[in-house]
Amino acid sequence: MKQLILALDVMDGEKAMEIAKKVAEHVDRIKVNYPLVLSAGVGIMKRLSEIKPVIADFKIADVPYTSSLIARIAFENSAESVIVHGFVGSDTLREVCRVAEEFGGKVYAVTELSSPGGEEFMSAVSLKIVEKAKEAGCHGLIAPSTRIERLREIRKAAGDMEILCPGIGAQKGSIEAVKYADGIIVGRGIYASGNPAEEARKLRRVLKI
Amino acid sequence: MKQLILALDVMDGEKAMEIAKKVAEHVDRIKVNYPLVLSAGVGIMKRLSEIKPVIADFKIADVPYTSSLIARIAFENSAESVIVHGFVGSDTLREVCRVAEEFGGKVYAVTELSSPGGEEFMSAVSLKIVEKAKEAGCHGLIAPSTRIERLREIRKAAGDMEILCPGIGAQKGSIEAVKYADGIIVGRGIYASGNPAEEARKLRRVLKI
Repeated sequence: MKQLILALDVMDGEKAMEIAKKVAEHVDRIKVNYPLVLSAGVGIMKRLSEIKPVIADFKIADVPYTSSLIARIAFENSAESVIVHGFVGSDTLREVCRVAEEFGGKVYAVTELSSPGGEEFMSAVSLKIVEKAKEAGCHGLIAPSTRIERLREIRKAAGDMEILCPGIGAQKGSIEAVKYADGIIVGRGIYASGNPAEEARKLRRVLKI
Repeated sequence: MKQLILALDVMDGEKAMEIAKKVAEHVDRIKVNYPLVLSAGVGIMKRLSEIKPVIADFKIADVPYTSSLIARIAFENSAESVIVHGFVGSDTLREVCRVAEEFGGKVYAVTELSSPGGEEFMSAVSLKIVEKAKEAGCHGLIAPSTRIERLREIRKAAGDMEILCPGIGAQKGSIEAVKYADGIIVGRGIYASGNPAEEARKLRRVLKI
């Protein structure tokens, strides 16, 4: 069953809780990032996790020791999974997966960012990142819906790893991504609309998920 | 004048303040990372900035919009500079530099991580990252003291950009890095020693900085 994931990229904790409650019925998980968590405090993850499972999109990209501490903080605060960068190497990927295992959590490795800059260095190595992520024990991958030909390649290399795709909506990603993704991540298209619940419901229908 | 920078990689706010006060006389700046800021809250940066200038080592590595929000939060909370990854592309580097300019802040781009994983993907492109960082308006670079031959190459490419080097001490980086770096970053070697002030003083003497 494919998932609709809300990228809750607001910076106010109360507004985040309000939107989460409104769309709860129509989304499968909530992805939070640093602007929200730094502004509202790490406790916001626990509060949101009482509504839907939370993905801590921290794009973890530090040396292994520091990366493991960041992952630990996310899981200790009720995140169900974390997002880590693959380009920083297998030692960081392994350390984050080791911590995730302690908590029964999941790790998604970024193959290439959905932004144009993601093509400058990441596209050339994203298939190798898929292999390193598999070897390190990552559960899944983050791949761009903004470059369908890259997503197609990543899907082939990924085997049964779960792929989540950001970029549909504000970043003009293609709906075709649904063919290759296990989860579609949508942010402003839902939370910035006049009626987030209705928008999420409509998206499910359009994306047939 | 070369700098000694304390990597204050503890997770307790009060302990961080205590160590900062102890070593204030012997270090030029304090670098904080996510484990401390997530645990103690963003306010810890302002408190530390009253002791020494603060480098927010957030290894910013998201799409441009989210990266700009993270940089804004750091500068709004009294960081003097932020660390961003060069690997994610020029659009993210430009956005973070644009926000830094608003605050009169500085941006350091990571060329390659000092950990072994930093060699897997980053070494092959770190000289290109130097060029992109220059073009984007970054003030300086982060380069590894754990790979002197890479640091030498990065120094050549960097021109007058400021280079800060982590990795001496716990990560077994070489003291030879002092020849190429404008600042040496030391963490556990200082804060985890029995006498942080004495250790920092000794390091200044040994490193001749």
